[in-house]
Amino acid sequence: MKVLVVGANGQIGRHFVKLLSDDPDHTPIAMIRNEEQISFFNSLNVESVLVSLEDSVKDIAGVMTGCDAVVFTAGSGGSTGADKTLLIDLDGAAKTIEAAHQTGTDRFLMVSAIHADRREQWGEEIAPYYVAKHHADNILRSSGLAYTIIRPGALTNDPGTGKIKAGENLERGSIPREDVAAVLYNALTNDHLFAKTFEIVAGDDDIAAALNRL
Amino acid sequence: MKVLVVGANGQIGRHFVKLLSDDPDHTPIAMIRNEEQISFFNSLNVESVLVSLEDSVKDIAGVMTGCDAVVFTAGSGGSTGADKTLLIDLDGAAKTIEAAHQTGTDRFLMVSAIHADRREQWGEEIAPYYVAKHHADNILRSSGLAYTIIRPGALTNDPGTGKIKAGENLERGSIPREDVAAVLYNALTNDHLFAKTFEIVAGDDDIAAALNRL
Repeated sequence: MKVLVVGANGQIGRHFVKLLSDDPDHTPIAMIRNEEQISFFNSLNVESVLVSLEDSVKDIAGVMTGCDAVVFTAGSGGSTGADKTLLIDLDGAAKTIEAAHQTGTDRFLMVSAIHADRREQWGEEIAPYYVAKHHADNILRSSGLAYTIIRPGALTNDPGTGKIKAGENLERGSIPREDVAAVLYNALTNDHLFAKTFEIVAGDDDIAAALNRL
Repeated sequence: MKVLVVGANGQIGRHFVKLLSDDPDHTPIAMIRNEEQISFFNSLNVESVLVSLEDSVKDIAGVMTGCDAVVFTAGSGGSTGADKTLLIDLDGAAKTIEAAHQTGTDRFLMVSAIHADRREQWGEEIAPYYVAKHHADNILRSSGLAYTIIRPGALTNDPGTGKIKAGENLERGSIPREDVAAVLYNALTNDHLFAKTFEIVAGDDDIAAALNRL
């Protein structure tokens, strides 16, 4: 599969691109917005394309053409304001979904956030971010694409363990970014996960087994 | 009709509530979030209910029960940040739409903004606000409710003229808030406008005639 990775230079994105680039069955395309980010992907022999999520649907569709799947793991991050949350986390996702429609790229994986459907769990400070994620996910769910929405708990930089807990409604928990990337990698071609939304935290189950029980 | 006016204390809201309160066929309920706002509605003999758009869907549904229509003319305004744009203009609208579903309140009028579907027209500074309005409108359009989405140009405090220009794709223009309220009032029971989205600016046509040509 040829896979456009949106947000490839993020920490989950880098782990995920590495996994794909080691697999002869897949070809990742790293969508990044800064020339300085190219060298990392060059070192993996991975093609990168320079497009920002603030660019147009047409620009995003332009680099998506010919891909079989999209993985959306972009985020404006904690160092920018809620204006970028609207432009990137919400509208950037919406534009990527529109581009997938335009280009016939049917498979779409979204990295969301645990409890994104449960407003009563949103703390006051994080609530604006959750609004964006909640509605981006809803746009994807009603898009008609073969989607999978993955909602990890609090992200850590601990090394991956290959073990998770997965379910539709989990308690708060954390998970290494490397394990989130491994879940994306497993889910990519797993049609059991089409049209599914689920949460993941660190746990005791092998990733493949946990996902196949969903 | 019993009509819940969300954002009743805004300038369009006040004009609209006044029009409804003068019409024996209608009963407005002013949804406001501040006790100090009650006296204005008391002076019109209009019932007010104290609920914030940051409250829960359940709270909003609680004051909507028994209403026949909802008019959403709330906005976080220019003096707060994009965090409130997410919480009020986007998620506040989404929660109000959910409450309309829960309570069987089928008629829903939304005050949106001109060019909300045309990203290429969004200036950089105003773009985050447009993202919220664009997606709130999309949520309403896919809700199954009998909606009308009204997208005025730049709002002014000039006295209303009763004359507008209406269309699906207008050039930038301005319009007095009092005329926007009059459009809402005309549209409320006009089933020709169900499931329609249109733009309005100041013009030469009588409001009723302009709307019936849409």
